[in-house]
Amino acid sequence: MTRTAALPTPSAAEAAADAIRVAVSTVIFTLRRLPGSAGTAVVLPLVRRTRDPHQGLWALPGGWLDVDESLDAAASRTLAETTGLAPSYLEQLYAFGAVDRSPSRVVSIVYWALIRPDEVPDGSVENVEWFDASALPQLAFDHNEIVGYALWRLRNKVGYSRIAHGLLADEFTLAELREVYETILGRHLDPANFRRQVEHSGTLIPTDRFRTGSHRPARLYRYNQDVELADRGPLDARP
Amino acid sequence: MTRTAALPTPSAAEAAADAIRVAVSTVIFTLRRLPGSAGTAVVLPLVRRTRDPHQGLWALPGGWLDVDESLDAAASRTLAETTGLAPSYLEQLYAFGAVDRSPSRVVSIVYWALIRPDEVPDGSVENVEWFDASALPQLAFDHNEIVGYALWRLRNKVGYSRIAHGLLADEFTLAELREVYETILGRHLDPANFRRQVEHSGTLIPTDRFRTGSHRPARLYRYNQDVELADRGPLDARP
Repeated sequence: MTRTAALPTPSAAEAAADAIRVAVSTVIFTLRRLPGSAGTAVVLPLVRRTRDPHQGLWALPGGWLDVDESLDAAASRTLAETTGLAPSYLEQLYAFGAVDRSPSRVVSIVYWALIRPDEVPDGSVENVEWFDASALPQLAFDHNEIVGYALWRLRNKVGYSRIAHGLLADEFTLAELREVYETILGRHLDPANFRRQVEHSGTLIPTDRFRTGSHRPARLYRYNQDVELADRGPLDARP
Repeated sequence: MTRTAALPTPSAAEAAADAIRVAVSTVIFTLRRLPGSAGTAVVLPLVRRTRDPHQGLWALPGGWLDVDESLDAAASRTLAETTGLAPSYLEQLYAFGAVDRSPSRVVSIVYWALIRPDEVPDGSVENVEWFDASALPQLAFDHNEIVGYALWRLRNKVGYSRIAHGLLADEFTLAELREVYETILGRHLDPANFRRQVEHSGTLIPTDRFRTGSHRPARLYRYNQDVELADRGPLDARP
């Protein structure tokens, strides 16, 4: 078989590509104790749209990619501009590009991040509210689908990485760590089994300190920095 | 803290986004026995560029995203147009968008795929050659970096999924399966340990057939379809 490689002709293809715009959006999760409940929930900030399309609906924080900024920089900038949040680490999640996801043709490069509850600034930001990820209203565009995919990635990743660390203070009790897992996975974990598994994993180091309060004192642990966090591979080495 | 959410103004931001174009590229791996050697290599097809920028250099198969096609469809179309290959399954790898990766501003949504050696059509395609992924020349744009990232993803994924299946016939010997792992991971695996691990995993079903030839007969296995392949999550359900 011999076949001529049909390389795109510049004129037609470039004209078509010019009608496509690139945006970035960010799904940023934290945990929050639900009011009037003993449980915690995975929550994320959404921004109320102030113009069409979908004026009045809630949407992921984001904006257009500038011609002179990288994808990562655009994600950080638009997240800060819309919500005031500045997580230390954003990871690319997926590029969403269905033809009909917006009235005009938009490819959205979506990032995701975790932020510790104590890193969320106090006070409110205009047009921004935090929502329980498991009970979202109808969002703008395909943003319900995007959040669903980000939640799946979070649940998946918590199983084989230290990603729960991104939601905890430097020192924590085993009950606090288990609550992070239970909230993300959406199911109860047996305390004795959980203790056995994390003690066996070598990822935790017990400290000499204890959390005291209304319950009996609970030992504080910290993560063993010698054990690799989830490896992002060669992209980690990029400037 | 009260802050005004700085939503992008349509005029300036949209004008900037118009100067950015979207392309798709695909890294498609298979295994090939190296000439004059007992070993196999991970190989991928590259397309020689017939125009600037980087005329004459080798590049990943790809092209511009059409305004009326999805990202997945564009990846399949441009791969077929440039190489004649039509793998059954393409997975999105990453969006590459560094400002200086091309003379003009291009965001490339990169896909990757595996194809079995027997699925590669015979014969040659003009301007297309297969290269050993571990010994690439200087490629166009940031394509060396992209292949490096795809190789890392392949190595990573082979550890926790049945992805090796994408490189094997329906029935295979344990030695053939081990060779796939050894080639991808780039290291020797102990045959007895390997046999123990895969037999313990429950992912393989022994058949009553044997591979005969110059060596002693070796039992053929097939994958247990009841065990989940690597789960892509909710995106699998998308039309």
